[in-house]
Amino acid sequence: MLIKPAAALEGGVHHTEIRVRFGDTDPYGIVYFVSYFRYCHRAIEEFLRACSLPPHETFKNVPEGFGLPIVEAWGRFRRPSIYGDLLRIETRVQEIRTKAILFRFEFYPETGHDLLAEGTATLVAIGPDWRAKELPERIKAALSQGR
Amino acid sequence: MLIKPAAALEGGVHHTEIRVRFGDTDPYGIVYFVSYFRYCHRAIEEFLRACSLPPHETFKNVPEGFGLPIVEAWGRFRRPSIYGDLLRIETRVQEIRTKAILFRFEFYPETGHDLLAEGTATLVAIGPDWRAKELPERIKAALSQGR
Amino acid sequence: MLIKPAAALEGGVHHTEIRVRFGDTDPYGIVYFVSYFRYCHRAIEEFLRACSLPPHETFKNVPEGFGLPIVEAWGRFRRPSIYGDLLRIETRVQEIRTKAILFRFEFYPETGHDLLAEGTATLVAIGPDWRAKELPERIKAALSQGR
Amino acid sequence: MLIKPAAALEGGVHHTEIRVRFGDTDPYGIVYFVSYFRYCHRAIEEFLRACSLPPHETFKNVPEGFGLPIVEAWGRFRRPSIYGDLLRIETRVQEIRTKAILFRFEFYPETGHDLLAEGTATLVAIGPDWRAKELPERIKAALSQGR
Repeated sequence: MLIKPAAALEGGVHHTEIRVRFGDTDPYGIVYFVSYFRYCHRAIEEFLRACSLPPHETFKNVPEGFGLPIVEAWGRFRRPSIYGDLLRIETRVQEIRTKAILFRFEFYPETGHDLLAEGTATLVAIGPDWRAKELPERIKAALSQGR
Repeated sequence: MLIKPAAALEGGVHHTEIRVRFGDTDPYGIVYFVSYFRYCHRAIEEFLRACSLPPHETFKNVPEGFGLPIVEAWGRFRRPSIYGDLLRIETRVQEIRTKAILFRFEFYPETGHDLLAEGTATLVAIGPDWRAKELPERIKAALSQGR
Repeated sequence: MLIKPAAALEGGVHHTEIRVRFGDTDPYGIVYFVSYFRYCHRAIEEFLRACSLPPHETFKNVPEGFGLPIVEAWGRFRRPSIYGDLLRIETRVQEIRTKAILFRFEFYPETGHDLLAEGTATLVAIGPDWRAKELPERIKAALSQGR
Repeated sequence: MLIKPAAALEGGVHHTEIRVRFGDTDPYGIVYFVSYFRYCHRAIEEFLRACSLPPHETFKNVPEGFGLPIVEAWGRFRRPSIYGDLLRIETRVQEIRTKAILFRFEFYPETGHDLLAEGTATLVAIGPDWRAKELPERIKAALSQGR
């Protein structure tokens, strides 16, 4: 959260830290799958910030007439994390298409390289009519920075 | 949720049932305080529906120029509930003031009369400038129905 | 929630109703992808209940030495839903393997047949050592009921 | 999150930063009251960490036979915050009683001194039988550090 953008986005990979909180776990203290998807959204937000794209004017931009909803998401949850753990998310733009962006996420423990979970999320550019449209050039340019 | 308004609002008391879900508990499987406040919001929504006040045009009503944010809330959490429990909330309008509504909530087990938790929430009528204003008469009238 | 199991599980399809609440939407009032995954978990819980498998002793069962974590999930989000909408989820067991169960979810508006969103979730049976093991026969039998 | 304990707990006041995320707002983009209570829980966790009390062994400690559930909470919500805002929480231990701790929270904008929201939370020490018991001395000592 306090990580500097320059440091945060090296070689196109953004690092976000997430602390497992109350409400993130199942009743047995294990992080459940829904929380990983919530963490992915935070990772996208921080990735955008690191690219100088403020989330509040990127997910929906009324003046420029576009929105960027998440239309598809996938995750695989490999090893358990528990309440209080500090997780490290590595976030990449895996693909930029004409109308869509594909993010990829990898979850690791604070220290160590065991893959805990992985996932993807696809954002599509839409107009005010909710139909897919081309991604604004400035968004593509900003996301391509670190690649 | 499928309870008929007529049945739901007897003598000014509305009954809502809530099932304790993943994400509602602490890592030890006990409902934590934040979830009770979330349940209270659901109880207000169902109370409004039972009074023929659709929540999506009651919490914020652009044509009539008013909103109803919650400006104060309190809760006491007496006995533990766990994952899978079915809770019964009794919701009342405790007071209608010129510019504010005070709701009161009591949580009970599905069957039984042990008070598990209790709370209050105060909603204030505001205008587009976020300043307090008088409650619309139709809102007061609708809420007074069952009292 | 109050739907009878017999009515709920016809031809292997379970119907759950979900109301879109505060906290389920993005800041623009549209249900965001994380909420659909949360709704899927509720749908699994209600499916299990309809098969006489109480969730609190099915996701983790200490006496019988098994757990059923979700190890993979996928969703596609086709059309927007908004605050206050009542959604209908159709849930099926798509596949029962030796060690895993695959659920499939389809989201529809309260009335109507436009597919709003769809998804899958894979649960794997594990032992106390977190290693995959065969699904208990009674779980397989209960889930196969309505197929 | 990366703030050093020494810096974080000056004169008994702990500073936590919170970013407003998807799911924290009502459908109109305004932080709703439930989220403030969730933020309060995070503030307690970070306060405990700053006092060298790891939350995962403080809220429930099986070896020492105590738990610290939140039994009462209150909040007043004065000014609206919106999606993307960075909030600063000032957290204090307002009172340490024989069996209870009272935390106080004040919410401010990232820069500035307008009080956005305020609240309190009471934690009670309980034994394995869920009955109130005296706070462990080491907890009292740790919390009194910065006062």
